[in-house]
Amino acid sequence: MTERWTLRFGGFGGQGIVLSSVVLGLAAVYDGKYVCQRASYGAEARGGRCRSEVIISDEEISYPLIDHLRVLVIMSQQAFDRYLEELEPGGLLILDPDMVKEGVKRSDVVKMEIPAARTADRLGNRIVANMVMLGALQAKTGVVSRESLRRSIGDSVATRFVDIDLRAMEEGGKMINTLNKEFHGGSPY
Amino acid sequence: MTERWTLRFGGFGGQGIVLSSVVLGLAAVYDGKYVCQRASYGAEARGGRCRSEVIISDEEISYPLIDHLRVLVIMSQQAFDRYLEELEPGGLLILDPDMVKEGVKRSDVVKMEIPAARTADRLGNRIVANMVMLGALQAKTGVVSRESLRRSIGDSVATRFVDIDLRAMEEGGKMINTLNKEFHGGSPY
Repeated sequence: MTERWTLRFGGFGGQGIVLSSVVLGLAAVYDGKYVCQRASYGAEARGGRCRSEVIISDEEISYPLIDHLRVLVIMSQQAFDRYLEELEPGGLLILDPDMVKEGVKRSDVVKMEIPAARTADRLGNRIVANMVMLGALQAKTGVVSRESLRRSIGDSVATRFVDIDLRAMEEGGKMINTLNKEFHGGSPY
Repeated sequence: MTERWTLRFGGFGGQGIVLSSVVLGLAAVYDGKYVCQRASYGAEARGGRCRSEVIISDEEISYPLIDHLRVLVIMSQQAFDRYLEELEPGGLLILDPDMVKEGVKRSDVVKMEIPAARTADRLGNRIVANMVMLGALQAKTGVVSRESLRRSIGDSVATRFVDIDLRAMEEGGKMINTLNKEFHGGSPY
């Protein structure tokens, strides 16, 4: 049976939402998968919403749209308000609790809180928050291999950010085995 | 009236087809536009086809698919074979004549030949061919401003490639006023 992953990242301009999807997609290619990646954003001056999506499959992707969203990574309140309802039942929600102040009103999804912005600040640069999220996503789901994700980061980001991005990714991965133990169990996640 | 640009880049993995769409989309954001960007690729080991698309609009994009393709940038024979027919009548075809050996069998499109790979080789690195294409695209269409494209390249590519990428972009732009004089005229391009 074909395995098909559908993932969305939501936040605002400047958080590296587009880059997250590009890095994840390239990692999947390094794993030998087919990828469709998409992003919508704009009007920088107006502080616009930004979202990106990735579909990852073992087979060539003939239908490039997402009907059933399996994983939602949220980095802003506005994205949370807009996209939460589109996550499929049983899906995985990864959110930054410092960026989303309202509680999650759905009990049919798996929730994982990753303090990505705070962790990025601790590492020295807020802009690596997206890499904390990718590290957590990788460790939680295995949607791409850790090795491919590291390689993709190395190939995708500005040279001067490679080290801190890799550290941010590893910090995100570590959180899976510490902060979020309670979310393991019966769920596929 | 809303101006809506629809563009596709086609080639194979490793040519920076995804990056082209990301760089162009970010440049459009710097111009104050809304953007939807998409890419499909995969199975690196099999030398797969790669394509990316950008929609650029003055208004928020509610319909993120391309019905009418205005601009097609082609960097491989396989992409040429697959995508040429999807270019709308009157649309702009930018192709690398060293990568596409067959002639263009359509007379209802505007054709522009940009020897991007050859130019990139002359600059010292084949991987900047995509930036030659972006420079030519910018100069020909004005879909984004030159300043925003330069800024986007500076913000998107690895630090060590910024200089050569900007040079490649400028080389592409220069070709519009030399090699391709014959394509100016009655067409919107």
